[in-house]
Amino acid sequence: MDGDRIARDRLAARERLAREDAEEPHSSARERFHFPRGVIYLDGNSLGPLQPAVAARLARTVGGEWGDGLIRSWNEAGWVDLPARVAARIAPLIGAEPTEVTVADTTSTNLFKALGAALEARPDRSVILTDSRNFPTDVTIADGVARFAAGDRRVRVVEPEEVEDALGPDVAVLALTHVDYRSGLLHDAGRLTAAAHDHGALAVWDLSHSAGAVRVDLHDWDADLAVGCTYKYLNGGPGSPAYVFVASRHNGVLRNPIQGWFGHGDPFRFSFEHRPAPDASAFLTGTPTILALAGLDTALEVWEDLDLDALWDHARTLTSLFIDLVEQRCDGLGLELRSPRRASQRGAQVSLSHPRAGAVMRTLIDRGVIGDHRPPDLLRFGFAPLYIRRVDVHDAVEILREVLADRVYEQERYASPNRVP
Amino acid sequence: MDGDRIARDRLAARERLAREDAEEPHSSARERFHFPRGVIYLDGNSLGPLQPAVAARLARTVGGEWGDGLIRSWNEAGWVDLPARVAARIAPLIGAEPTEVTVADTTSTNLFKALGAALEARPDRSVILTDSRNFPTDVTIADGVARFAAGDRRVRVVEPEEVEDALGPDVAVLALTHVDYRSGLLHDAGRLTAAAHDHGALAVWDLSHSAGAVRVDLHDWDADLAVGCTYKYLNGGPGSPAYVFVASRHNGVLRNPIQGWFGHGDPFRFSFEHRPAPDASAFLTGTPTILALAGLDTALEVWEDLDLDALWDHARTLTSLFIDLVEQRCDGLGLELRSPRRASQRGAQVSLSHPRAGAVMRTLIDRGVIGDHRPPDLLRFGFAPLYIRRVDVHDAVEILREVLADRVYEQERYASPNRVP
Repeated sequence: MDGDRIARDRLAARERLAREDAEEPHSSARERFHFPRGVIYLDGNSLGPLQPAVAARLARTVGGEWGDGLIRSWNEAGWVDLPARVAARIAPLIGAEPTEVTVADTTSTNLFKALGAALEARPDRSVILTDSRNFPTDVTIADGVARFAAGDRRVRVVEPEEVEDALGPDVAVLALTHVDYRSGLLHDAGRLTAAAHDHGALAVWDLSHSAGAVRVDLHDWDADLAVGCTYKYLNGGPGSPAYVFVASRHNGVLRNPIQGWFGHGDPFRFSFEHRPAPDASAFLTGTPTILALAGLDTALEVWEDLDLDALWDHARTLTSLFIDLVEQRCDGLGLELRSPRRASQRGAQVSLSHPRAGAVMRTLIDRGVIGDHRPPDLLRFGFAPLYIRRVDVHDAVEILREVLADRVYEQERYASPNRVP
Repeated sequence: MDGDRIARDRLAARERLAREDAEEPHSSARERFHFPRGVIYLDGNSLGPLQPAVAARLARTVGGEWGDGLIRSWNEAGWVDLPARVAARIAPLIGAEPTEVTVADTTSTNLFKALGAALEARPDRSVILTDSRNFPTDVTIADGVARFAAGDRRVRVVEPEEVEDALGPDVAVLALTHVDYRSGLLHDAGRLTAAAHDHGALAVWDLSHSAGAVRVDLHDWDADLAVGCTYKYLNGGPGSPAYVFVASRHNGVLRNPIQGWFGHGDPFRFSFEHRPAPDASAFLTGTPTILALAGLDTALEVWEDLDLDALWDHARTLTSLFIDLVEQRCDGLGLELRSPRRASQRGAQVSLSHPRAGAVMRTLIDRGVIGDHRPPDLLRFGFAPLYIRRVDVHDAVEILREVLADRVYEQERYASPNRVP
């Protein structure tokens, strides 16, 4: 084939992808988001993009509700009800009832509450079981809970494939992250929850890297507790508040160790006696962070009326397409796949290794393809199904190919590392 | 005296107050704030008002840093450093070094951390000592810590005047709020901290109702730990993040029980082994709430270069003036003073009782004087020295007099209660 023919074929392939994109039932969702010109954003698994409606909501909340309404807005603008309102928007994305979810604090703090509640419910068991692929803060939080809690408690870390064998009569709680933040490996949450229950343990899931990207059905899994962040696939903005799920069968049984006034059944009684709220609201603690909740409330409107199963299918389509195109177009350029090859075993992200991953990612970012680098050698790409299209995948792979083939990343300017959470 | 003469005298008195206001060294600070027309805002002790510069900062952070910068802003816009930058602004207001303060989470959660750290440092002592005038969430948090922590722990609540006598060899930690949220009664924090130390206990102070309104000097008090909110006198906005103080002598000794990745000495190593930051940053936990921190960062600029002692004097001037004018102008109208009469014994707030306090406050709010009602019978007025003037005090008392004298509050429309945190 001559060069023109190749270019024409590629163009035709891209046009075919664009037509398929246009047929997706959620194709208009992307229009709600702002993307800087020239950017292909494959880091929505780290920080979701802005919807201009969120900026407008924040401006109203700040200028009108805070500035003009002042203290009156706690009632008149409904600030007191924001945690429950936002929880009701998250619930359908994770297979929960609205009253089983509340929104507050950070994922780490909520995990402390969830693990603390689980330990208290299993006073004669010593172990928080987790796996070696868990997100680091989840493991340090578990260590902190184990050290601080009453009783002889400790954390046991095993390899992902050893989790079921490690369950036993000493395990109080199984604490796992649904999707491995590095490889994208997806745990079989239903099976592992059932195994935990078979051994008398509770199961706590961290959904930070899965909710909004893959199917999460806490009822179907029979999960006990779950936590997750809202600034990744839920697009709540940097450091937006996290959520907690508590299965309704545990109402009145599982107790939030950080029992502050907003988790009280009647916070405005100003009572010294803590009577927890009758549902997941008991896992609220302090005064809600109103500005962040207001932004998140608007950010979540995009999920209304979407066909979620079609969306999760789209995520698998995108990751599969990415892997296929990388293998076709970047063959021999030093990349290795570090995510599961089977779409059903991975989240909405793909990791590739490269010996110069840091410099490669910095070069890609310079050319508009934003993913992230996980030291030492991982290039991580997220494919948020709400707004990433097949053509984005196509174009990103072409730019990756250029960067690798021309060895652009070897330039001095791409040497210095960044720090990104 | 005839009516005209009385009116002239009052006008002259008001003009004298206005002249004194203009001579205050901080008189231009008020211009940075937005107040709705016709409002006299005496509830800054519940929620501080908006500075338009904060709205502008938030718009930049949302549109530019999040919208255009996306994930890159963690480094390029300095998001990772925001907790430390904001802490450095708070430190001088509470008599601390910048590295002794960090900003995160809510006051309730930070109190859990502080009390947890204190209990862990006193393994052989059982009691968290507090007083009956403490803020309710502080007591329920203490109960939660005591229930959850290793060892035999419990909370003992005594009357404010019994605190020193209740200190003994079983007390692990004395936990008090510097200013009583109802009466405004100010604890002698230096004396009580010394007494706690004499008995081998640690002292934890909640500064929510004092920092930014009265002199707080944690070094002078020799305090061990402190927490406080930023949405009252520090004007950070509804639910803005709270702070924690940890005296540097406790670095490496007092340990945050909620040990998440942002409290790690090197969060981006993504390590399972928690090595706490060497200073108060160890009391960070999860991903910082960037939007709220950015707003707070700008909100705190107003304190730069102010004469703080003059400001604390001004707060006492305002509360004394309010009490004097209420006694002159509202005599026989059913009010009773419920705050300490001596200015040195109270914070920047005054509480009055009235048998119909709820309806009276709703009427006042309708007429532009915003304070708050604390059931059953308290009318609470805050006098934030940054922006409240003598003329505001004067005008508020005149309106209070009208409302009481004309018994406007007896109308049906003022019957229904509000819920306000």
